[in-house]
Amino acid sequence: MYQHQFSVRVRYAETDQMGYLYYGYYAQYYEVARAEAMRALGISYRDLEVEHKIMMPVMSLNIRYVRPAHYDDLLRMETTLRRLPGRHITFYTEVFNQKNKLLNGGSVKLCFIDNATNKSITAPEYLLAPLRPFFKKEHE
Amino acid sequence: MYQHQFSVRVRYAETDQMGYLYYGYYAQYYEVARAEAMRALGISYRDLEVEHKIMMPVMSLNIRYVRPAHYDDLLRMETTLRRLPGRHITFYTEVFNQKNKLLNGGSVKLCFIDNATNKSITAPEYLLAPLRPFFKKEHE
Amino acid sequence: MYQHQFSVRVRYAETDQMGYLYYGYYAQYYEVARAEAMRALGISYRDLEVEHKIMMPVMSLNIRYVRPAHYDDLLRMETTLRRLPGRHITFYTEVFNQKNKLLNGGSVKLCFIDNATNKSITAPEYLLAPLRPFFKKEHE
Amino acid sequence: MYQHQFSVRVRYAETDQMGYLYYGYYAQYYEVARAEAMRALGISYRDLEVEHKIMMPVMSLNIRYVRPAHYDDLLRMETTLRRLPGRHITFYTEVFNQKNKLLNGGSVKLCFIDNATNKSITAPEYLLAPLRPFFKKEHE
Repeated sequence: MYQHQFSVRVRYAETDQMGYLYYGYYAQYYEVARAEAMRALGISYRDLEVEHKIMMPVMSLNIRYVRPAHYDDLLRMETTLRRLPGRHITFYTEVFNQKNKLLNGGSVKLCFIDNATNKSITAPEYLLAPLRPFFKKEHE
Repeated sequence: MYQHQFSVRVRYAETDQMGYLYYGYYAQYYEVARAEAMRALGISYRDLEVEHKIMMPVMSLNIRYVRPAHYDDLLRMETTLRRLPGRHITFYTEVFNQKNKLLNGGSVKLCFIDNATNKSITAPEYLLAPLRPFFKKEHE
Repeated sequence: MYQHQFSVRVRYAETDQMGYLYYGYYAQYYEVARAEAMRALGISYRDLEVEHKIMMPVMSLNIRYVRPAHYDDLLRMETTLRRLPGRHITFYTEVFNQKNKLLNGGSVKLCFIDNATNKSITAPEYLLAPLRPFFKKEHE
Repeated sequence: MYQHQFSVRVRYAETDQMGYLYYGYYAQYYEVARAEAMRALGISYRDLEVEHKIMMPVMSLNIRYVRPAHYDDLLRMETTLRRLPGRHITFYTEVFNQKNKLLNGGSVKLCFIDNATNKSITAPEYLLAPLRPFFKKEHE
């Protein structure tokens, strides 16, 4: 298992007239959370696209909303990889507010597309190498 | 069952550097689709909030992505209510491109909050009355 | 002079906690307005990029806000080209609500970049040909 | 004069199919920059709205774009108040990339609305008090 935490502050642009962070913008928060979860391992999603010519389109998104976030809240996002990626990778993200209350939780499943062939491939070594140490015990 | 169709054109702002409509913006498309599905029945979500003092926060969002949309695509959204709302209402939306290919499908579940008490209530009569005729046969 | 009108309805996602259409989202509205102003002349901005390999990055944006828009407002946008484009093209847009009140007005100046050379060029014939009839008198 | 710096990383959601940070999203960046410029002085825009019942709608926005930003760029924003706010406040923001190249610069002018009366007022003491020390010399 690999877990990472990252915080993002709610922008005014992201609130709606209920005074809540609009439900649809969490997809962006999850995106930021998983990019930072990778960065903490030395993996740059930008390099994956630009240098390794691999794109990661999203296959599914699921979110359960428990409580709303408000303007200026500093949200803590806890992102988890439960298994080593194969043909897919699934990030689980939970979002908490300053009082440590769970606001929502969800998952995003992505696949790997080789730009040259436009075909789906398995997770590239660039991604797997730094992740393997976190999943060793499960394979022993 | 109640079904409604509405089309929205993809904005440049909504594309990402893959050249795709960013996965997170479909939540907005689903929102537009369900607002128009209601409007076609004479139900205004604005009036629901402003006059009836009822808010409809989202409880869950699920999307499965099949194909990407591109800039300037005119997307057709097919929104379905499979059952008369009770304490919740679930909208099922499928998104198709100009070639009638399914791009994604998903569901959004919302509840009803009375602004005065800030408590969850059952679907108000303002919503139920125009919907009932579509669900009659199921109850006979 | 060339003028075109197009209407867009305010999404819930675009409101903020003041209950207003967030000031930053008008850039998207202006984008839609100018794309539709071109489409009405048979010019597709998508084709300009994909087939003619010309990009139009924005050089400046100016907006003066007079009144706010609210959720579900159907905004009428009036887009004007005051002169035939040369190295730049400037779209002037005014946004009105249902009561025909001016909400804001602004301008967006763009240039033309040839994808092959990545250099700035003058407006391509694809754009100029359908525009010329509207600017004839000024040249006589 | 009061000046403040803050950095924000470009999200994938904010890129467009040119591979640029979409021109319209800088309004959000400017918003974040001015909120943080205030926070550094102990001023919370949230408290201004919630506790002091003052809203600050935007009156004008002007941006000149010099170079594009790309995905994952860590943008440094330099926000400047050139004079003590009166009936209006104008924030000047310049955005730089990691190579310290200017990407764009612009200004946002806002006014102060008293929620109780819905009328325009002069800048409240809550804002002026921490700002005065930075503008002292100009008045001597």
